[in-house]
Amino acid sequence: MRCWVVLLLLAGHACASYDYETFYFDQKIDHFNADNDKTFKNRYMVNTKSWGGNGDPIFFYAGNEGDITLFIDNTGFMWEIADEFKAMIVFAEHRFYGESMPYADAYTPPYQLGLLTSSQVLADFASLGTHIRQSLNATDSALISFGGSYGGMLAAWFRMKYPHITQGALASSAPILQFTGMVPCHVFGQIVTEDFQRTSLECTEVVRRSWAAIDTVTSTDEGKEWLSTAWGLCKPLETRNDVLALKNLLVNVLVNLAMIDYPYPASFLMPLPAYPIKAFCEDLRHPKLEPEPLLEEYFLGLNVYFNYTGEMKCVNTSQQADPRLGDIGWWYQACSEMIMPMCYDGVDDFFEPVPWDLASYVEECHRVWGVTPDAGLAELLYGGKNIQAASNIVFSNGLLDPWHSGGVMEDVNPTVVALIIPEGAHHIDLRSSNPDDPPSLTATRRLEKEHISRWIRQYAQEQMS
Amino acid sequence: MRCWVVLLLLAGHACASYDYETFYFDQKIDHFNADNDKTFKNRYMVNTKSWGGNGDPIFFYAGNEGDITLFIDNTGFMWEIADEFKAMIVFAEHRFYGESMPYADAYTPPYQLGLLTSSQVLADFASLGTHIRQSLNATDSALISFGGSYGGMLAAWFRMKYPHITQGALASSAPILQFTGMVPCHVFGQIVTEDFQRTSLECTEVVRRSWAAIDTVTSTDEGKEWLSTAWGLCKPLETRNDVLALKNLLVNVLVNLAMIDYPYPASFLMPLPAYPIKAFCEDLRHPKLEPEPLLEEYFLGLNVYFNYTGEMKCVNTSQQADPRLGDIGWWYQACSEMIMPMCYDGVDDFFEPVPWDLASYVEECHRVWGVTPDAGLAELLYGGKNIQAASNIVFSNGLLDPWHSGGVMEDVNPTVVALIIPEGAHHIDLRSSNPDDPPSLTATRRLEKEHISRWIRQYAQEQMS
Repeated sequence: MRCWVVLLLLAGHACASYDYETFYFDQKIDHFNADNDKTFKNRYMVNTKSWGGNGDPIFFYAGNEGDITLFIDNTGFMWEIADEFKAMIVFAEHRFYGESMPYADAYTPPYQLGLLTSSQVLADFASLGTHIRQSLNATDSALISFGGSYGGMLAAWFRMKYPHITQGALASSAPILQFTGMVPCHVFGQIVTEDFQRTSLECTEVVRRSWAAIDTVTSTDEGKEWLSTAWGLCKPLETRNDVLALKNLLVNVLVNLAMIDYPYPASFLMPLPAYPIKAFCEDLRHPKLEPEPLLEEYFLGLNVYFNYTGEMKCVNTSQQADPRLGDIGWWYQACSEMIMPMCYDGVDDFFEPVPWDLASYVEECHRVWGVTPDAGLAELLYGGKNIQAASNIVFSNGLLDPWHSGGVMEDVNPTVVALIIPEGAHHIDLRSSNPDDPPSLTATRRLEKEHISRWIRQYAQEQMS
Repeated sequence: MRCWVVLLLLAGHACASYDYETFYFDQKIDHFNADNDKTFKNRYMVNTKSWGGNGDPIFFYAGNEGDITLFIDNTGFMWEIADEFKAMIVFAEHRFYGESMPYADAYTPPYQLGLLTSSQVLADFASLGTHIRQSLNATDSALISFGGSYGGMLAAWFRMKYPHITQGALASSAPILQFTGMVPCHVFGQIVTEDFQRTSLECTEVVRRSWAAIDTVTSTDEGKEWLSTAWGLCKPLETRNDVLALKNLLVNVLVNLAMIDYPYPASFLMPLPAYPIKAFCEDLRHPKLEPEPLLEEYFLGLNVYFNYTGEMKCVNTSQQADPRLGDIGWWYQACSEMIMPMCYDGVDDFFEPVPWDLASYVEECHRVWGVTPDAGLAELLYGGKNIQAASNIVFSNGLLDPWHSGGVMEDVNPTVVALIIPEGAHHIDLRSSNPDDPPSLTATRRLEKEHISRWIRQYAQEQMS
């Protein structure tokens, strides 16, 4: 019964479908070192209410960087279509997140995070999928993978690397091309900006001018104090680094607003109203104001983001969007394997200009984690754009979602296809259906179900031959 | 200039084609642990004499369990067809064999062999293939993998896991199905026996009766002494364990004879005459002899195996076939990941009855290496019989070769095909052509070249689109 967060804002959702049983699988800590036979408890959740029995499919959510319950609550599509497919539902938690901790002190210096790699987690999924087939008498069942964002990347890669275990993958908003040399680094920020421009050019300008305004205002101690009070910061700004942290937070807020610009109230990263960019921009109309009044106006928008529920006492600049998201773990992954170049120019986007600087990035990762970023690893392991040999993957992307900058936007071959949702934000197709869904989303979900049906039929035929 | 061993017996072979340059690539010791950035020198050899330049193919031999020079000397097919394909030739040495040692003392107790796994070596090949494309200006060149036996398994798996790096694989005599639950354990021994039966039923009976004869004779100290002298053993038999070691050696001799029953003199595992089973069986005609004369007769056959060159001073029961083969490393691999069940019944085969006993196997592996065999790992990683999603692999098998018991003997799909050479022994198709090649072998090589051509054309088309 983990559905209250969703229910809070999505009245009318059938809570019963979110029931599940929780299990723990003894997963090898290191699948690729024969001398290490240590294991950890890999959490997963199962619901067999709709399942028809052996031969009927397993819907397998490839957990991403967070507590798996966060994704259970935000992947209504799987729950909604389970009856129609007589499917078992499984949510697999990603190692080093939630309760699936290989070491109790993994996140305590000196850190034990080296085995937090995509290759290890894909082997986890393969082992767990095999275990589920055997332990639940589902040896003839197709296993269909689902995932969104990084979880979508994992779902797609799971199919590429273990096609004997997963018969197809729905990879929603999965930026498998957001790596070095595959796509230009500036596109992501431009998409964010365009989402705001589409709503209000004045609002976009307020944001664009806010960076200099913050610098001007916070150049004095009085100014720092003033902004801390005006924006209700939990911890007053004292140093230049505090200001940089605040700006960092603002970048994340803007990116998150673009990602979760859903047409109905939702609570994925934050509890937010329908069309949160529109709500954010509502009062941001005067870009030519002087710095202090500009920032006062800006705060009216920020307040929509931080305090839509009216429960927030103050703004915490070091907080993360949802405490169940594993920001720290992801930071390590971004420093080791998931190096996704981003850059802003302040002209075609509304961010402060920041070039992509691999050298500084490497230095910072070294300093914080003692790890060396391997910018070529994802391409080496997964092929980048060269995935013609793959099969049975749907890559879905919404054009509102900035992550489509690294998405697969064109069909690769007859069974590795791209579905585009023009009015869609970040993995909106995985969410529960809603009366306010745009028609393109409804049509996409219909196509996704057709692909899933075909994968299941194909597997049944292979089993018979 | 490593070709003298081959030349010794295959007069007329063009030695020049075996020229190569030797390189060492800084390979990550652990590809799947982000905290380990140590590297080792991975040896590889390159010949660009026939290569047409960027866009023309790379022929990449996936090194198996031994010094790579052993395979350079026994893979004449690649050298012979390089001109026709304008191909660069690369031989990649397998980690923990030959000169490619991650740790200088890897094989010294307490051993550091945990990273001697197929997953790691496939990642080595992927990294090396990418490095070669970049360092030799071959970024547009198709990379075609070749391998025989375990190397053939690796070639096939390399294509399955890294299809963006290798565009096709010729997997010769690759027993990817010789794992738990995939094929019956007794078939291998039956094929060995049939190879001898086809030559001589009397010879087969001499072998079948030799086990009991050895037991009878060596039941006394005088008997042990007699047999040690009669067979010219380097180290006289003293204990029951010495006798067991001798029997073990005999099993290997019989298996090796079946594997390398080539129609011409060759020197793959041992220098041997054409049709070595025929030579071995020549004088083994009296299965009803009493134990001592039976073993004297048996020795006439063994002498063909051990001393075809006439240079062997005595028979060393602990010797391996070719010192360049990494028997010790393979033992570790067989104890960790490459668990291939074998059993004999003495009725349908001519071996001593030995059931497949996983429990003892596990115990022995624990005792020797401190490692736990994972009998399900190969299937988990590579799919066993469920490889319908693979593409561009030729599995070739000779029916004389006992390893075809675990081979892919039927087409899996239009591009994953099985080629059968009825008169063929172990990966004979990878060897140099010979006037005594059976027509089925010549036809198979022609088909293999057609597949390779198709893979290269397909890659060129993909590059253009």
